[in-house]
Amino acid sequence: MVKYLNPLLLAIPVSIFVHLSGHSPVLLFFTACLSIIPLSGYMGKATEEIAIYVGPRVGGLLNATFGNAAELIITIFALKAGLLEVVKASITGSIIGNLLLVLGLSMLLGGFKYKRQSFNRAAAGMHTSMLLMAVTGLIIPAVFLNTHSNPAAEPLSLGVAGILMLVYILSLVFSLHTHKDVFRPSQECSDSPSWSKAQSLAVLLIATFFVVIESEFLVESIDPVVKALGISELFIGVIVIPIIGNAAEHSTSVLMAMKNKMDISLEIAIGSSTQIALFVAPLLVFLGYFMGQPLDLLFTGYELIVIIMGTVITAIISMDGRSNWLEGAQLLAAYSIMALAFLFV
Amino acid sequence: MVKYLNPLLLAIPVSIFVHLSGHSPVLLFFTACLSIIPLSGYMGKATEEIAIYVGPRVGGLLNATFGNAAELIITIFALKAGLLEVVKASITGSIIGNLLLVLGLSMLLGGFKYKRQSFNRAAAGMHTSMLLMAVTGLIIPAVFLNTHSNPAAEPLSLGVAGILMLVYILSLVFSLHTHKDVFRPSQECSDSPSWSKAQSLAVLLIATFFVVIESEFLVESIDPVVKALGISELFIGVIVIPIIGNAAEHSTSVLMAMKNKMDISLEIAIGSSTQIALFVAPLLVFLGYFMGQPLDLLFTGYELIVIIMGTVITAIISMDGRSNWLEGAQLLAAYSIMALAFLFV
Amino acid sequence: MVKYLNPLLLAIPVSIFVHLSGHSPVLLFFTACLSIIPLSGYMGKATEEIAIYVGPRVGGLLNATFGNAAELIITIFALKAGLLEVVKASITGSIIGNLLLVLGLSMLLGGFKYKRQSFNRAAAGMHTSMLLMAVTGLIIPAVFLNTHSNPAAEPLSLGVAGILMLVYILSLVFSLHTHKDVFRPSQECSDSPSWSKAQSLAVLLIATFFVVIESEFLVESIDPVVKALGISELFIGVIVIPIIGNAAEHSTSVLMAMKNKMDISLEIAIGSSTQIALFVAPLLVFLGYFMGQPLDLLFTGYELIVIIMGTVITAIISMDGRSNWLEGAQLLAAYSIMALAFLFV
Repeated sequence: MVKYLNPLLLAIPVSIFVHLSGHSPVLLFFTACLSIIPLSGYMGKATEEIAIYVGPRVGGLLNATFGNAAELIITIFALKAGLLEVVKASITGSIIGNLLLVLGLSMLLGGFKYKRQSFNRAAAGMHTSMLLMAVTGLIIPAVFLNTHSNPAAEPLSLGVAGILMLVYILSLVFSLHTHKDVFRPSQECSDSPSWSKAQSLAVLLIATFFVVIESEFLVESIDPVVKALGISELFIGVIVIPIIGNAAEHSTSVLMAMKNKMDISLEIAIGSSTQIALFVAPLLVFLGYFMGQPLDLLFTGYELIVIIMGTVITAIISMDGRSNWLEGAQLLAAYSIMALAFLFV
Repeated sequence: MVKYLNPLLLAIPVSIFVHLSGHSPVLLFFTACLSIIPLSGYMGKATEEIAIYVGPRVGGLLNATFGNAAELIITIFALKAGLLEVVKASITGSIIGNLLLVLGLSMLLGGFKYKRQSFNRAAAGMHTSMLLMAVTGLIIPAVFLNTHSNPAAEPLSLGVAGILMLVYILSLVFSLHTHKDVFRPSQECSDSPSWSKAQSLAVLLIATFFVVIESEFLVESIDPVVKALGISELFIGVIVIPIIGNAAEHSTSVLMAMKNKMDISLEIAIGSSTQIALFVAPLLVFLGYFMGQPLDLLFTGYELIVIIMGTVITAIISMDGRSNWLEGAQLLAAYSIMALAFLFV
Repeated sequence: MVKYLNPLLLAIPVSIFVHLSGHSPVLLFFTACLSIIPLSGYMGKATEEIAIYVGPRVGGLLNATFGNAAELIITIFALKAGLLEVVKASITGSIIGNLLLVLGLSMLLGGFKYKRQSFNRAAAGMHTSMLLMAVTGLIIPAVFLNTHSNPAAEPLSLGVAGILMLVYILSLVFSLHTHKDVFRPSQECSDSPSWSKAQSLAVLLIATFFVVIESEFLVESIDPVVKALGISELFIGVIVIPIIGNAAEHSTSVLMAMKNKMDISLEIAIGSSTQIALFVAPLLVFLGYFMGQPLDLLFTGYELIVIIMGTVITAIISMDGRSNWLEGAQLLAAYSIMALAFLFV
């Protein structure tokens, strides 16, 4: 959690005031977005603190499960509101945001400070192949059933979600039990707790409470914002929600790169994308099923393309165990080109 | 060849009896399937034995050419019966079956026994790039001519088949002549013969004779089975035929993984897929041309996708020279998701 | 520059005579094609000589910018004549020609002389990931806007061209300034100049003058050649123009491979493809905009496929740092299959 995000907390009272006044949904949207950035940071920090108290195994499980909690809360509200395309777009956007934007910024800023940075190729390779497999499973339904009113979409999506979730559980068994020596999750930044157990729990509860409120503000203002500003729901889902939901985590990745700890940087970026594909997406499919908002995994052609390209580029970039500022700039260029294309769709 | 497959030989007399009685094509289908599993095993074992007698060069040629003999016989009968979609589906299914199912099972079961398994990265890389190129050539006609009634499909498919076959011959020259030191084909399991020359020839002839009979039973019962069970021809072609046609070879790959000989395991799985693309598929195109059953290489979009994904996943997985049980589980999950999708197509 | 290309210079007077006589556009087309081969070689050689005189930094910039000058001139004339599909096809053809044809020939002929050839994996990996990113950016507009009359095609293409050009400038900063120790451009063949400064300039001017004339001949005879010979504009753009525009450079790559200098060979082939994507293509988009011939980056589905496949194959092949004649043969087979497919489209 980065301290200079604290001023953004001022957006909370403003958003509540704007909400109560009932005017200007555009302002409500922007203040809700701004306030979620530090809140998700506090949720992450509190989870990490609690993880230290409960020991490595349960702690690892906590970190793995709640790593994308803020984004999960936003998408659950979007799901409840029936904004299924926004939900799918935000899954896409989270994956490429982590891979291209976060990794790109990390390699660029890290590369400005250190001429050459290196990381463990074996670990990066393992994270990448896990990501690749997760992404493959995620996009299979869309590839096979490419019309949006296919009657088989729901059962196939549920079946695929089940298999993905099973792989997620197996990967937890792998990383927390049978091969726990391979993964050393971010010890560098969290060896000893800086908050007491009670403090951590209180922060987690309060931050979650406000994230819930701001997510509701955000989701209810999407429709008027789309009408007022002329940007598409797709753009909000692909670009805006993933950035605000992950901003705090992203800044950790960039900070680690600037401390020349590229291994942690890559683990955050690639691991977070994998978790979206193996855990968040299947969970949303199940929740949608029980909430009567049947979310299928039929991504659009554009979404498929950016997911595939983002994954392949990351695989190639991380294969040689080295990075420099130009690779960072190239990842950011790829992200910019894709974001630009989503504006024109 | 694995001895515990022997009981399945009992399916041979049952299938002949069911065939003669003329009842229950569904039972005929299942008994024919079951009997082909050990028979293809005996064909493979006999070929290997003969290969030892005739010396490394001709022997290597024999092993390379008859490695997929059982499956080739089944698909020739399907070709003769005009089941062109089944033939193309079984080419697809063999490639992904070898890459995802066999390699997945090998890495999973091998990984249960050995925490980490490793293999020669350079050899794996060479096999993988050969596979990639073979697959690229194979799918080009479908990518260029994406309608199934394209008049250019036949000449283009014949031309591509010719180039693929030429590459196959060149790859034999490479592995048996100019670079024979690089490839050491499965010496580990076949240093000294266990059968006499006459025994080997007799086993080969008898096994081939029965594979021919059972293939005829299998192909003639596909149509009634499709109607009776409600599964599609595509599913039989993609999932069922490749599994029974390669089951014996597959069990060898898994056994080698459990003996921690991952190099042989990978060579069988990747090499077998490459052979399907470079040798079996072009041969079927030529045979179809002469049999008046013009088989083009216009795979469906679904088939293209699974071929491409299966190949890319294998390339990424085998690039780091290591494997563990989770990678095996991930490959199996990818196979399950694809098989599930073929059920819903 | 290879001396045995000199006899082709005789095609210049013949082409001028054929042009003046006004007969036989087919002969004009062939003589123009033949004469461009040695001319582009002299342009390249003269540029390299001048580069030595002006010092490494400006020289590197010169080599990087004018490396594809002959092809750029041909495509500018095609652009002026409104042959937008030919221009896009030649961008595609240059990329796969460099990757599959040139690299294939280099690995094949080099591999005949040396059983195993090796090259620096790290450098190859860096070139490959740069190529991959360049290609990704290039094809994004086509992937997002897949109809040829999309009103957003022009603004998106201009935006993407701007980002690609920016990455090109950044990559020059990287290779000529911040990381100049990593790249050692072809010193092996150009340590000391063989021509005087004045000679080099004169050769450059004269060769460029004739390339301009022959390019005009070539472009004006495309239409009658298409009608007379029954081959498509697409085929001329994808296969013919890239081969003649790059033949001289290609022969250098092959010669280097035959001297066992695979690093230079790969640098030429992959670097030239990257330059097409990052510099030539965006430049043509900008020129088209100012010339009133709006060139968008909406490549056809076929073009997308061959660009993607050519890039991925090269990435996989160059990943292990080794090559042999079979890999060369496989690249050539992939090129032949694609060329064959373009004949049937």
